[in-house]
Order: sequence, then C-alpha cells, then structure tokens
Amino acid sequence: MVWCSGWKLVSAVSNAGGLGLIGVGSMHPVTLEEHIVKTLNATEKPFGVNIPLFYPELEKIVEIIIRLKVPVVFTSAGSPKLLTGRLKDAGIKVAHVVSSAVFAEKCEAAGVDAIVAEGFEAGGHNGREETTTLTLIPSVRKATGLPLMAAGGIATGRGMLATMVLGAEGVQIGSRFAISAESSAHPDFKKLVCTLKEGGTMLALKKLAPVRLIKNSFFDQVQEAEMRGADAEELKLLLGKGRAKKGMFEGDLENGELEIGQISSVINDILPVSEIMKSLMEEFWLATGEINTAENFRF
Amino acid sequence: MVWCSGWKLVSAVSNAGGLGLIGVGSMHPVTLEEHIVKTLNATEKPFGVNIPLFYPELEKIVEIIIRLKVPVVFTSAGSPKLLTGRLKDAGIKVAHVVSSAVFAEKCEAAGVDAIVAEGFEAGGHNGREETTTLTLIPSVRKATGLPLMAAGGIATGRGMLATMVLGAEGVQIGSRFAISAESSAHPDFKKLVCTLKEGGTMLALKKLAPVRLIKNSFFDQVQEAEMRGADAEELKLLLGKGRAKKGMFEGDLENGELEIGQISSVINDILPVSEIMKSLMEEFWLATGEINTAENFRF
Repeated sequence: MVWCSGWKLVSAVSNAGGLGLIGVGSMHPVTLEEHIVKTLNATEKPFGVNIPLFYPELEKIVEIIIRLKVPVVFTSAGSPKLLTGRLKDAGIKVAHVVSSAVFAEKCEAAGVDAIVAEGFEAGGHNGREETTTLTLIPSVRKATGLPLMAAGGIATGRGMLATMVLGAEGVQIGSRFAISAESSAHPDFKKLVCTLKEGGTMLALKKLAPVRLIKNSFFDQVQEAEMRGADAEELKLLLGKGRAKKGMFEGDLENGELEIGQISSVINDILPVSEIMKSLMEEFWLATGEINTAENFRF
Repeated sequence: MVWCSGWKLVSAVSNAGGLGLIGVGSMHPVTLEEHIVKTLNATEKPFGVNIPLFYPELEKIVEIIIRLKVPVVFTSAGSPKLLTGRLKDAGIKVAHVVSSAVFAEKCEAAGVDAIVAEGFEAGGHNGREETTTLTLIPSVRKATGLPLMAAGGIATGRGMLATMVLGAEGVQIGSRFAISAESSAHPDFKKLVCTLKEGGTMLALKKLAPVRLIKNSFFDQVQEAEMRGADAEELKLLLGKGRAKKGMFEGDLENGELEIGQISSVINDILPVSEIMKSLMEEFWLATGEINTAENFRF
C-alpha cells in the first residue's frame, strides 16, 4: 500500500468499520508523524500502521508510534521477533504478515496477537514460494490457533467469505482500497488499474525481492533482462531508486513501478471507501445467505 | 493426471459419486481403448476422458471415444473449436479447461456444455498468465453463464465450498486423487507427495510450456538453466522425452518430471477413493453448516 495509504484512506476505512492501516513504507518519519496525528483527528476508531521491517529508520518510527499511542501495528518483510516484544510492552496489538506456515509458527513463538497470511496473488512485495491464498490459508490455519487474516486476491464480499471458509477469521484488503477515492495514489494510476484484466500483472524481480507489477514499459524491460538471465546487480541498477513513487504517486505509468494485486481484474471503478465497505459487506452477507439455502447445491 | 488416471481410479471415482476422467495424455490409442472398456465394465456411472488437444493421435482417440460411447469429454491445451462440434454431434457432453475469462468466452462461442477454470496453483501444465483460482473464478463467472467447475488448489471440502462461494457450480480435483490408492502413479511418487510442504512445487519451463513440478534434482537443473537465461531449445533438450513417465510411473524421483499441485501441502496420506470422497463431502457439509451459524462471524 505504498503511496496509497495515508491518513485520508486510513481514517475513511476505520470510520467505515474496518481497521485502516497507514503504509509507512513510503513515508519519512516526519511524514508518518503527520499522518498519525491527522488520522487521530479524523477518526475515533482504532487504526494501525504497517511497518516493512527492512525500513531504514525503524528506530525513529517505532518511537513515534509508541509516543502517539497508535493502537495496532502490522509488521512484514522481516522477523516477527524484531519488534513484537517492544510494541506489546507498549500496549500495542501486533500482527505479522507471512507467506508460509513455517513463518506463522515463528510468529506464534514471537508472541504476535494475530497473523496475516498473504498469497501469491497479492500486489507489491511477495513471498518466494509463490503459494496462493487458496493453498496458504489451510496450511497456516493448521499451524496456528492465532487469529488469522487472509490477504491476496480479496476485493469482494465473496472473496472474504471464501477465505473465511478456508479458516481465516478476517481479511486484509489492499488493491480494492488502493483504488478508492481516498487513496493517495495518482488518479492516472487508479484509472489504469480499472482497465486491467487477468494477466495484467506479473511477479517480477525474483532475483531481488519478488514484487507483483503491472505490465508496463518498465515491466517489459525487467522481463527482457530476466529472460536473458540478468543477475541481481543488473536488476538493481535497472530498478534504480524511487520508481514506485514515480509510478503510483506521480503517475508515470510507463517508467514507474506500478504495484497492484491480481484481483485488480475485478476492480473497474474508483469509489469512496464508504461505498466499497458497504458493497463488500452486502455481498458477503448475500453469499452467506446463498449457502444457507442448501438447495443451491444440486448434488 | 498423466500416469495417474487409468480405469481403476476413474471407475472408483465414478462409483463414489464423482465423474472420473481418464487422462489420455499418457496413453497410446490402444491403451486408451483398453482403459475405456475396463471402466465400462467396472462402473455403470458416467465417466469421461480428458484430451490435451496437442495429443499427436487425436483422430484415432476421437474415433475410439465416439465408437465406445464415452458420455463425457474434457478438452484442454488448445482451441475449444477443434473437437467440440464433432463430439457434441455424437451425443457427448463437452467441457473445456481454461485459465482465463477470454478463453471462457471462446468456449461459449464453441458451444461447450461446461467450463473448467484452472488456476496457477494447479499441478502439471498451466496457463501463462499465472492467474490463481481465487482471482480466476470470479472473472470467468462474470464472463459466462455456463456451468463452471473450479480447478487448482482444491483438495478438501473447504476448498470445494470456497470456490463455489466465488461462483463455481462444481470442482475438478486432481492432486488429491493422484495420491489415492487407486491412482496408477508409482508408490514412491505418492509417498514423496505426502511429505511436501508449501513451496514444495514451483512453476517451471515457462519458455516451453509452463508446468508445475516438485522441486527435485531435475527441477534444480531446470531452474539453474532458467536463472542463467537458457532458451527454449536448451530447455527442450534438458527435458528430453518421457520424463513424466520416468518420474510418476516408474518412480525415478530424482530425474523424473514430477507433476503435482500446490495443494499437495495438505495431502499427507494415500487413501482409497471412497474414503477421500467421503471426507471431501463431510468437510464440505461441515463448512456449510458453520456458515449457517451466523454467530461464527463476529463483526
């Protein structure tokens, strides 16, 4: 959710009954502080911050989060042992994002309160084992009794129910809210996502850190390099710095790094968060009701 | 289901209430005829044949299928226009396997009776767009009103229900039955699959035809070649001929091509088909019942 998830989106999600998460991946500490304060002013509901653990100024942002009494932190892309104890000592609820059951077990050992299990179809940075949400959730469910949120491939009420059938208690939804009115992503990026079909994104840069990208000119360059066996060093040079900002925030759709999930194939409109949340819940209950009518299953 | 799905497995599945499919991909026409006759003797229930459309002796097997009055044919890996009309004229029900909504529309135009939509997590040959079952089913559901079976990542009753929540009317289950007592796969292959965790398989040979393989010595060779940018010609030489037979039928677990789905991570035992079917249905109805009790959802 880099370049998408600032205070506007976060407070809108929390006010609509979700748990909005500030995506710290694209923020300097000063900017994060500003967004936390604005979120606190814009909602009385709980919200959280998502911290990728490779973030360079980890110390500074942890200090800000604890000082401003952010109620929830989601950590990802690193060891759950790194921050969990400290955050919990400060009274913060901690969830960690995993892409395998093995890591879910490490989360439990580290004392997290909840686990997000994110599948291959998710946008942005992604696990190396390429396990899809449909196959991941049952394994993680089996590995841990902790509250479990499914992520990757969920943008509708049916998607929510499907992953809860597999054993999740809740869901983490990215792409659908990245393409909302309140998302801070560039309008042209949002419009482009609304046109994507299946196959519009692909996992790339596997020799660096796998990331799901929209197939644009930059992706084509990456793919060409990967097809001929380019090494990590060459890919790193090709990627350069600031490409995600260039693409998703500044709207350079050709040269930017455009991150979105596979499920963007079913996202066709830019709606306010309140409408998205309403339609998610309406479809969820509709799908639940259909199952209640057993005659829908004709066998 | 090459090297797994002969008359024993097919008649067991049909006798247990499923629709068993003979996997013609690994059979010479004479062998296919033998398996159809044996299946006809072993069950009075409907069964089918799955035909990969790149099969070299297509004419011969179509003649056999029509002559022996096989009631159902599933086609895959080619255009649904190729055989659908002819098979339907012979009174055969036809389903075609797709990996995208675009192909689902082509199926509808070709006059198929039903569609199988198979996601990235499936074993064996796979689509190029890498769309997962969770993201594929809603798109295909939107594209067609034809009966829709979900495939890829389904080995349990919860998996069945989850994909039906997404819009499928039925499911096609491969890996779970490949690892059954009645499967003709080599016992050592079945035992190996029972030990796999997430990440135990990976999509490979993308420059030829993408195929999901178990990570064994052969896979390592393929990966090494792909990492340094080996072209299709080199990969073809490396693959050689008969590797799937060598691995799955003859039990050469190091040098064979071992095809199985990601969901093998939840398969831990080799059971008779009747028990698998019973447990699939029991879990399906259990999961359905849980949704009936709305208080399970605490929001």
